[in-house]
Amino acid sequence: MSNILRILVAAIALAASARATIATDAPPNSLVVTVSGLGQRALDDPAAFDFVQSLTTEIGQRLAGTEAHRRAVGWAEARLKAAGFENVHSEPFTFPAWIRGDESAEIVGSVPQHLAVTALGGSVATDANGVEAEISLFRTYDDLLAAAPGSLNGKIAVVTQHMVRAQDGSGYGAANPIRRLGPSEAAKRGAVAYLLRSLGTDSHRLPHTGALNYEDGAPRIPAAALAIPDAEQLERLAAKGPVRVRLLLTPTVQANASSWNVVGEIKGKERPDEIVLIGGHLDSWDLGTGATDDGAGVAIVFGAARLIAGLPNRPGRTIRVVLFGAEEMNFSGAAYAQAHEAEAGKIVVAGEADFGARNVYSVQLPGGAASSDFGRMLDRIITPLGANLDRRPALGGGDDIRELQKAGVPVVSLRQDGSDYFDTHHTADDTLDKIDPKQLDQAVAVWSAFTYLAAVSDVNFRSLAATAK
Amino acid sequence: MSNILRILVAAIALAASARATIATDAPPNSLVVTVSGLGQRALDDPAAFDFVQSLTTEIGQRLAGTEAHRRAVGWAEARLKAAGFENVHSEPFTFPAWIRGDESAEIVGSVPQHLAVTALGGSVATDANGVEAEISLFRTYDDLLAAAPGSLNGKIAVVTQHMVRAQDGSGYGAANPIRRLGPSEAAKRGAVAYLLRSLGTDSHRLPHTGALNYEDGAPRIPAAALAIPDAEQLERLAAKGPVRVRLLLTPTVQANASSWNVVGEIKGKERPDEIVLIGGHLDSWDLGTGATDDGAGVAIVFGAARLIAGLPNRPGRTIRVVLFGAEEMNFSGAAYAQAHEAEAGKIVVAGEADFGARNVYSVQLPGGAASSDFGRMLDRIITPLGANLDRRPALGGGDDIRELQKAGVPVVSLRQDGSDYFDTHHTADDTLDKIDPKQLDQAVAVWSAFTYLAAVSDVNFRSLAATAK
Repeated sequence: MSNILRILVAAIALAASARATIATDAPPNSLVVTVSGLGQRALDDPAAFDFVQSLTTEIGQRLAGTEAHRRAVGWAEARLKAAGFENVHSEPFTFPAWIRGDESAEIVGSVPQHLAVTALGGSVATDANGVEAEISLFRTYDDLLAAAPGSLNGKIAVVTQHMVRAQDGSGYGAANPIRRLGPSEAAKRGAVAYLLRSLGTDSHRLPHTGALNYEDGAPRIPAAALAIPDAEQLERLAAKGPVRVRLLLTPTVQANASSWNVVGEIKGKERPDEIVLIGGHLDSWDLGTGATDDGAGVAIVFGAARLIAGLPNRPGRTIRVVLFGAEEMNFSGAAYAQAHEAEAGKIVVAGEADFGARNVYSVQLPGGAASSDFGRMLDRIITPLGANLDRRPALGGGDDIRELQKAGVPVVSLRQDGSDYFDTHHTADDTLDKIDPKQLDQAVAVWSAFTYLAAVSDVNFRSLAATAK
Repeated sequence: MSNILRILVAAIALAASARATIATDAPPNSLVVTVSGLGQRALDDPAAFDFVQSLTTEIGQRLAGTEAHRRAVGWAEARLKAAGFENVHSEPFTFPAWIRGDESAEIVGSVPQHLAVTALGGSVATDANGVEAEISLFRTYDDLLAAAPGSLNGKIAVVTQHMVRAQDGSGYGAANPIRRLGPSEAAKRGAVAYLLRSLGTDSHRLPHTGALNYEDGAPRIPAAALAIPDAEQLERLAAKGPVRVRLLLTPTVQANASSWNVVGEIKGKERPDEIVLIGGHLDSWDLGTGATDDGAGVAIVFGAARLIAGLPNRPGRTIRVVLFGAEEMNFSGAAYAQAHEAEAGKIVVAGEADFGARNVYSVQLPGGAASSDFGRMLDRIITPLGANLDRRPALGGGDDIRELQKAGVPVVSLRQDGSDYFDTHHTADDTLDKIDPKQLDQAVAVWSAFTYLAAVSDVNFRSLAATAK
């Protein structure tokens, strides 16, 4: 019996000391049985679905900076308290809030047609009458990058590259620069506005929003996403001759808007200063009700931690649930890391659920942990739940924990099936009906198993990583 | 060899008289071979898809009464002429054109939320500031009908009954009164506005429009359809307490607007006054580009007739293609029947393709024809194409030929697979990408087989029906 297993068994025995049935010299199977039981309870627990149902129904959209997000913060605090979490509070930060205005686009000229578009988060506004220009259409982003400076002078640049459907979301990663960087790349070549085929895998007239990142020094031009059928329509029309488009966007920015990272904890019994941090983001885009992004994620970590809080005894380490407050515009992770800079060394591991509502099919641990006793035990527990331990280490764990990771915090990635996540991602279609409660519960089960094991053990991911190198 | 088969063989031999290879005493298999060959050519003919692609790309939406529909009429005439149709012309009629305005709805009060709605065709406008009231929500239409007079005074009535998915579209038929008659039923009970769960089988934030029919004498109240996720959201909220909604609709009506039924013919060689009439409707709803409703239908009958026009010899009877001009608001069929009242007795049979772009899975002939020699021969030809002859007679053939049917014209129903037709029907999502060219071509094949057999033979559906009685 390895040291780590002895420690784990001792920890669970200690945690369960009020129940004399678990002896300190119980075989390692005891912990497996305990954690497996936790996972099985998650499969029949309505709490996570109830959480996301209530959030999306009683609040709806909750873009950071809106009154609705402020209400969501109060709602979340009350929920966490009611579920028995401790140290429930909200940590404020300020950020420039981008608020959507009117948005429309049409083909003008002899074949006038409406186009379904939505402004990219962070886009500047057009003139009050919109911007009207001939389009230059590029079938790939590389084609745009290959265009000479000045070649897009006075044009609306349009990139219609397809995003690839992939279970692990790699299609989104590959296409992301089209949305984030495309506006400035087009502006540097003279374009007066920018349109992209939505980063999505559906074929509905519901465009996908998402943030852009203007490049310092490049002109800031208005930018929007076309619904996928509309991008295809533009391709067909552009093949026939010149096409003129008028685009109207009227977003505004509120400097120094308020947001909050909402926190609740299950305090550790033995080593409360050691923290297993799990999170999701409470804010959402404004077009839908943020059911899969990220109502599901906050529901999953809430549901997992709540089940652990309901055990007869607490794990040795503290489990901290963080519901981040401005992920979509990329502000909450940095705010959190900055506020908790001094504490980073005490965060054992961090993970974020922000990839929809479907089942977890694999878990990537911090480097060196997959082949450890911790990894082997986790694998035994999650395999019956339909998830595998991935031998590859987690390269990242979510946007809100990236800054913690940079500060040395080990991260875990519980990979959910994202095959259809980008059908509705960042669209008006991100609503409750897209969530299958059974799949959501499976994700809760795997999260609860990982979280409990990490909190009940004294696994040290930093030293495992160092040893593996 | 039956009389009818002798006649059919003689007819095809006559039609093919320039080609000496088909003898007048050829076995009945010859006609089967000829028509089957026609069907096979349809399966590899890009003409129908090209037609609907061009129509939806170069025109887009074409609600009757809009400038776009006027352009579509010119486009269609040019297409028919270019394809070799004869007697191409457009038959004008006037009607009251309903034109969509602004439309929006939101939940007001402590949990404000946007609702995705679209006005029903024919709805009156709200006040310029909209109508705001508490909702009364009914889970079934029967529940609304059971409400007492006065019980909805000052309320917005909401009916959230689900529409059932069915291959034959019977779910739409069953639910249709909710949209057509619900507004007046609610008004008679005191309601100030009416909302229904869209008649659709999808779960997208794209509401389904469609016409209503106000009842004479009942107050005319504004009426709109909720997207299906929004109807479900209202159900959840209404279960928690009172819900107030503000609805804004600003449609207008243009009296004496112009539309046209576009006609093209393949003149019969022997009995040109005997007419096999096949049609679809050129007008569409305004939210999408009318790809499946009814770009596909006009493309199918165009494609089928064009293939027949391309045969070395013409059938004995005239094939008339009619692209109706105001089906969605129910005006073109009556206009056509009225203009052709004197000719009705010469119309051998009429059929309309207006049920999407998928394959024909069964054919319903006029009463008495299924068991005739004509029916048996048709069955031999369409079975290899993946369609069956339905023993049940066609009860109807499409909205635009209903008035002809009332005037005694036999009708045929080529039933297309409508399993997913109501996912996008009457929504912004009715776009070209929803059409599978291979399935469209199968429909063209079955239509070409039926149309050719009806035009090359002297089948008399009226006498078959009389004999069968």
